[in-house]
Amino acid sequence: MRILGIDPGLRRTGFGVIDVDGPRLIYVASGTIVVPGNLSLAARLKTILDHIREVAEQTKPDIAAVEKVFLNTNPTSTLLLGQARGAALCGLADSGLEVHEYTALQIKKAVVGSGRAAKEQVQHMVQRLLSLNGVPAADSADALACAICHAHMQPVAVALGRGGLSASSGRMRNGRLLG
Amino acid sequence: MRILGIDPGLRRTGFGVIDVDGPRLIYVASGTIVVPGNLSLAARLKTILDHIREVAEQTKPDIAAVEKVFLNTNPTSTLLLGQARGAALCGLADSGLEVHEYTALQIKKAVVGSGRAAKEQVQHMVQRLLSLNGVPAADSADALACAICHAHMQPVAVALGRGGLSASSGRMRNGRLLG
Repeated sequence: MRILGIDPGLRRTGFGVIDVDGPRLIYVASGTIVVPGNLSLAARLKTILDHIREVAEQTKPDIAAVEKVFLNTNPTSTLLLGQARGAALCGLADSGLEVHEYTALQIKKAVVGSGRAAKEQVQHMVQRLLSLNGVPAADSADALACAICHAHMQPVAVALGRGGLSASSGRMRNGRLLG
Repeated sequence: MRILGIDPGLRRTGFGVIDVDGPRLIYVASGTIVVPGNLSLAARLKTILDHIREVAEQTKPDIAAVEKVFLNTNPTSTLLLGQARGAALCGLADSGLEVHEYTALQIKKAVVGSGRAAKEQVQHMVQRLLSLNGVPAADSADALACAICHAHMQPVAVALGRGGLSASSGRMRNGRLLG
């Protein structure tokens, strides 16, 4: 099973793709969709929509997991975040993906074991769980953590012994897959 | 110029299409996208996205106008509204439309002449301005009012006179050309 995790935001939307092979988690791709602030709101949302569809098309996930938005005390910020999240969910649904939603608490518990974990701990554990060479950037780490959370929520599936097949891996930045 | 007006909401999204021909406003189409509440959030947003694209494809507007969301005191409601609005804006931008945004105050002022107008007054004035046989439903009326507001904000470009082309400039108020 391939999972696409998303951490939505109007300025920066993180994405991370992992494969689940029995008990193993395999890193596939991750990156951040950086949205230029000088565009109109509709154009910014379209940027998110387009890049999410592009990531889905390039990585072909089976399912998507999205972090629930933190309810900001500032209603204007909440509205902007909501619109960005709407665009991200539209991109996923438009790519035919079923979307699961997890709170930051669920994600931190799944990845670090505690809901009170700091951002750095999440980045550190994502690096460890996916055997990455370096610490992933914050947005990518949150998106990968969301995908890991979804993997952990699944009943342990049948481990597919693929006899030597190894998943291709790479990183994506700004919607482009880097070897 | 053909204008598509949208009044976004998660349960009901109103749409209304009008043509602007010099000082005349001509009704083209209107309706409400009713989203089933039993669907997942992503599926509900996808319903809005799909129907907005369908309306745009069928009516071929030149430009879109969207009502700005009222900031609810309840942050959960604001977030849900934001997501619905994000889906509507994505549908418009995905159809290649430039999107203009107007507050409820601007829309009411443009249609009724007062920002404190009741819903029924908006419906009544939309019926009058577009010479409709019946009172439009509330969601359709709000969407049509948004399109009318955009028409009123435009400088009147070129009026076609019988003796040839004559240019005039000014603004429209309640369907009448001023200046």
